[in-house]
Amino acid sequence: MPTVDLNSDCGESFGAWTHGADEEVLSHVTSANIACGFHAGDPGVMRRTVRLALQHGLALGAHPGFPDLAGFGRRNIEMSPQDAYDLVVYQIGALAGIAATQGATLHHVKPHGALYNLAATREPLAAAIARAVRDVEPRLVLYALAGSALVTAARDAGLAVAEEVFADRRYAPQGTLLPRSEQGAVIESSAEAVRQAVRMVRDGVVTAIDGSEVKVRADTICIHGDTPGAAEHARQLRAALAGAGIEVAAPAGRRGDARGAR
Amino acid sequence: MPTVDLNSDCGESFGAWTHGADEEVLSHVTSANIACGFHAGDPGVMRRTVRLALQHGLALGAHPGFPDLAGFGRRNIEMSPQDAYDLVVYQIGALAGIAATQGATLHHVKPHGALYNLAATREPLAAAIARAVRDVEPRLVLYALAGSALVTAARDAGLAVAEEVFADRRYAPQGTLLPRSEQGAVIESSAEAVRQAVRMVRDGVVTAIDGSEVKVRADTICIHGDTPGAAEHARQLRAALAGAGIEVAAPAGRRGDARGAR
Amino acid sequence: MPTVDLNSDCGESFGAWTHGADEEVLSHVTSANIACGFHAGDPGVMRRTVRLALQHGLALGAHPGFPDLAGFGRRNIEMSPQDAYDLVVYQIGALAGIAATQGATLHHVKPHGALYNLAATREPLAAAIARAVRDVEPRLVLYALAGSALVTAARDAGLAVAEEVFADRRYAPQGTLLPRSEQGAVIESSAEAVRQAVRMVRDGVVTAIDGSEVKVRADTICIHGDTPGAAEHARQLRAALAGAGIEVAAPAGRRGDARGAR
Amino acid sequence: MPTVDLNSDCGESFGAWTHGADEEVLSHVTSANIACGFHAGDPGVMRRTVRLALQHGLALGAHPGFPDLAGFGRRNIEMSPQDAYDLVVYQIGALAGIAATQGATLHHVKPHGALYNLAATREPLAAAIARAVRDVEPRLVLYALAGSALVTAARDAGLAVAEEVFADRRYAPQGTLLPRSEQGAVIESSAEAVRQAVRMVRDGVVTAIDGSEVKVRADTICIHGDTPGAAEHARQLRAALAGAGIEVAAPAGRRGDARGAR
Repeated sequence: MPTVDLNSDCGESFGAWTHGADEEVLSHVTSANIACGFHAGDPGVMRRTVRLALQHGLALGAHPGFPDLAGFGRRNIEMSPQDAYDLVVYQIGALAGIAATQGATLHHVKPHGALYNLAATREPLAAAIARAVRDVEPRLVLYALAGSALVTAARDAGLAVAEEVFADRRYAPQGTLLPRSEQGAVIESSAEAVRQAVRMVRDGVVTAIDGSEVKVRADTICIHGDTPGAAEHARQLRAALAGAGIEVAAPAGRRGDARGAR
Repeated sequence: MPTVDLNSDCGESFGAWTHGADEEVLSHVTSANIACGFHAGDPGVMRRTVRLALQHGLALGAHPGFPDLAGFGRRNIEMSPQDAYDLVVYQIGALAGIAATQGATLHHVKPHGALYNLAATREPLAAAIARAVRDVEPRLVLYALAGSALVTAARDAGLAVAEEVFADRRYAPQGTLLPRSEQGAVIESSAEAVRQAVRMVRDGVVTAIDGSEVKVRADTICIHGDTPGAAEHARQLRAALAGAGIEVAAPAGRRGDARGAR
Repeated sequence: MPTVDLNSDCGESFGAWTHGADEEVLSHVTSANIACGFHAGDPGVMRRTVRLALQHGLALGAHPGFPDLAGFGRRNIEMSPQDAYDLVVYQIGALAGIAATQGATLHHVKPHGALYNLAATREPLAAAIARAVRDVEPRLVLYALAGSALVTAARDAGLAVAEEVFADRRYAPQGTLLPRSEQGAVIESSAEAVRQAVRMVRDGVVTAIDGSEVKVRADTICIHGDTPGAAEHARQLRAALAGAGIEVAAPAGRRGDARGAR
Repeated sequence: MPTVDLNSDCGESFGAWTHGADEEVLSHVTSANIACGFHAGDPGVMRRTVRLALQHGLALGAHPGFPDLAGFGRRNIEMSPQDAYDLVVYQIGALAGIAATQGATLHHVKPHGALYNLAATREPLAAAIARAVRDVEPRLVLYALAGSALVTAARDAGLAVAEEVFADRRYAPQGTLLPRSEQGAVIESSAEAVRQAVRMVRDGVVTAIDGSEVKVRADTICIHGDTPGAAEHARQLRAALAGAGIEVAAPAGRRGDARGAR
C-alpha cells in the first residue's frame, strides 16, 4: 500500500508574537517541523509546540533556519559550510533537549526557508547539513526537496530521506519548483492541487508547466500552516489520498520514540 | 582520600571577539563549563571548546546564562521560573547536540553570572533550574554555590550536586560570598587564596571576614579563566592540593561518557 | 479650555510578525509612541509606522524599551543608569533618523513596558532617562506616569512633561496604579472608564480603590492599541471628552515639525 | 596642494568583548567610521568612541553593517534594497543621536564589510544606500570604494563622495581590488604599501597586478585598526605623504559641526 507523510512547519511564533494556526493544522498532519529559535520560535514556544505535536501523535522534527529573526529565515546568508553545520547541530540539539523533558526524541530534520532552498542546489552546503544531522543522531530522517542536492547529500551520508513535494506549486521540466515570482507558479485551485498531489504519490509523476511529464518521488507533502484555509485544504487532501488507497503516515524512523513514550 | 574538582568557565568568545585564555587554563582544570550561546559562545565557538575540553580529558558542562550578549549574562533579567526553565533546557540541549557530534555526553551544568547568583537565593528560580537539568538528563551533576538555595533545590530534584567555593573570595559569617563591592571581598595574595582553598577542601571550614569559622562544603573550586595569571594560580593551587594529599578530579557522573569515547 | 492628549503605543510588529491594530487605532489618537527596535519594531516597521502617524497628523514619539525581543520589553533588566541612558539615546536617534527621511522631527518620548514602570519609582534610572532625552534634543516632551519619579526627573532636567493617566485602571490611595495582579485593578466597564478619564482631565481627581479622592494631573491618556475594542473605546472617550468641553490635542512641543513639513 | 583623508573603522567592540586598538590608531587618522550596533558596537561603546574621536578632532562617520553580530557583518545577507535602505537610515540615526548628546553632528557614512563590498558592484543596493544617506542628511559625505557602483550612486543622489583606496592591497587591471583569496592580494612590505599610497594620491594611478597602469581617485585611505602594527604603518604613511607635499585632512563636509563645538 502506498504511503505518504503530511508535514507542517510549526512553532513559528516568538515571544509576544504569534504566527500560523498550529492548533488547527497539526490535527491534520503526520509530522511536525518545529522552529528552533534562529528564524522563529523561542524556548517556551518550542516546549508548547512539542507538547501539542505529541498530543497529536506526530513525528517530531527540528526545523533549523538561518539566524535571522527579522527576516524570518527567508533571506540567504552566505556562510561557510562549517558555519551552517554548526548552526544546524545547535538547533537540533536545542529541540532535542526540549523533547527529552517530555520523554520524546526527534524523528526528523527539515531545514527552513532560505537554508532549505540553498541546500537544494548547493552541494557543499547540502553536504554540511547532512553531516550535521548524521553526526548528532544517524537515525534522524532528513526531509528535503524531491530530487534536490540535499537528497543526494543525505543518501551519501547514510541518512534516511523523505523527499518532499508541494501540492500547490507548479514544477519546471527539470523537476524543480517554478519560482514564486513566475506566472502560474502557484496552483490556485484546491481541487487541482489535490489531484497533483495524489498523482505524485501514486504514480511518481507530475505534469510540468510546459506540459511534459516529470518523474518525482513524493515521500512527504508540505502543508503550509500559515495560509488561510490550510486546515480545509489538508482535509480535502486526506480524503483524496484515502480515496486513492494511499496511507498517510510519517516515514519510518524512531517511531516509538517520537511518540513520546517515556 | 579527599578529592576536589577544579572547574573553569570557558568558550566565552563570540564571533570575531575572543574572551579568556581557554587554551592555557583548560590544561590545569578537571571540568569545563562551556557557554551555550545566550550570554557568550556561538555554535562554532562551542564546537571548538568541546574539542579542546575533550583533548584535555575534562568533564563537559553546560554553562547556560540569561539571553544578554551585550551584558555578558551579568545583568539580572526578571523572568518567570518557567521562562528560566525553558532557557536552561534549550541551552543544555544545544551543547549536548554539539557534544554528540564528537561522541561525547555532558557531565554537568553550572549556571552563569546573574543566573547563578539569583539562583543562589531565590528558591522558585533555583527549583526551576534544578527541574530543567533533571528533566533533560537526570544523571547530570549540578554545580552550585556552596550552601545556596540551588544546592537544596538540586538535592530536592534528586540530582547529584557539586558545591562550589572560591579560593580568592572572602566569605561573610553566614557563609555567603562577600559582594565584590565591599572592602576586602577579593583576596589579593595568591598564597593566601591557596591556603583558604586547601582548608575549605580538607577541613570544610573557611575563616569569614569577621574572623569567625564557617562550615563550607567544597566539591569544586572555580578557576577564573579571564583574569591575568589564571594559569599560574591554578598551578600553585594544584601543587598545594597535592601537598595536602588531596586528589584533583571531576565529581562522579557520566565519567566515561564525558571523556569522548564513542 | 481644558485639553488632553490621547496617545497610543504602535509600531510593535517585528519582521513577519504583526502586533496591534495600528491602522485602526491611530485614526483616533493625537500622538503616536513608536517602538524603536529593542523590544519590538524593526527599521521597516518603524518607517511604515512613521508614515502612518504622519498621515494622521499625529505627534511622533519614540517608545524606547529594554533590549528584549523575546520578552517584549516587559521584563525588568537590571542595568546601570548609564546603560539605560545609552540605550534611550540610541533608540531616539534611530527613530529620529527615520523621521528625518520623511521630513519630520520627533515630538516626544515615552519609555516602554518595564523601563516605563521601573522609571516611575527608581530615581537614578528616571534621572538617566530624562538626561538622555534632554541631551539628544531638549525640546522633546517626556511622557511619564502621572505623579511618578520620572515626572520629577524630567522637570529637574528642564524638559516639558506630559503626565499620563489610564482610563481603565484603578488607582491606589497614593495615586499609583493598582498592580494588574490585584483584584479590581482593571475597570471592565467602558462607560465607567470613560467617566474616570473625563473626571481626571476636568477635575484633576480620581476615586481610588478605597473610595478616597486622589489628586492627579492628566495631560495624556493611554489608548491600548492591542486590546479588542480599542478603536470603539477611543471613539466613546472622544465623544465624552467633547461633551465635557475638553479639547483633544497633542501637548505643545515641536508641533509644526512633528507634522512632517520639510 | 593635494589632500587626502586617512580613515579608520572603530568602535567595533561589543559588551564585554574588545576589538581593535582605537585608542592608539585614532591618534593617526583624520576620520573615524564608528560601528552602529548591527555588526559591532553597542550604545555604550558608541558613546565612548564618539568621545574619543572628538578628542582627536576627527570627522565623525557612521559605519553601518548587516545585522550579523556573529558574523561581524562580513557575510552577505541577501535583502531587498528597501531593507538595506531602512537599516542604513536606522544606524545613521542611532549614531547621530549619540553624537548629538556630545554636541556633535555626523560628517560621513562608510558602509561596513559585506555591505560595503556588495554595494561596490550591485547598483540597486548602491542606489538604496545612497538614498538612505541623502534622505537622513544630504550634507553627509559617502565613503565608497574608488571607482565602484556606490561612487556613481552617491553622485547620482547628489551626495559628496570620498573615493577610498587601500595602501596594502593590490589592484586588478579593471581597477577593482584583487580578492584576498588570490596570490599577491596583500602587499606585505610596508614601504611598498606606502609608495603605492603616495602614488595613488599624487598621480592618480596604481600599478595593477599585471603591471598595467590603472587610473584611480584617492580621496581617503583606509587604515585598518585591527591589524598589528597599524599605528606604526599610519606613522610611516603620514611621513611619506608629508614628504610628498600632500596634506592629510578629512574631506570637506560639515567640518565645524563634526568637531564637536556645541
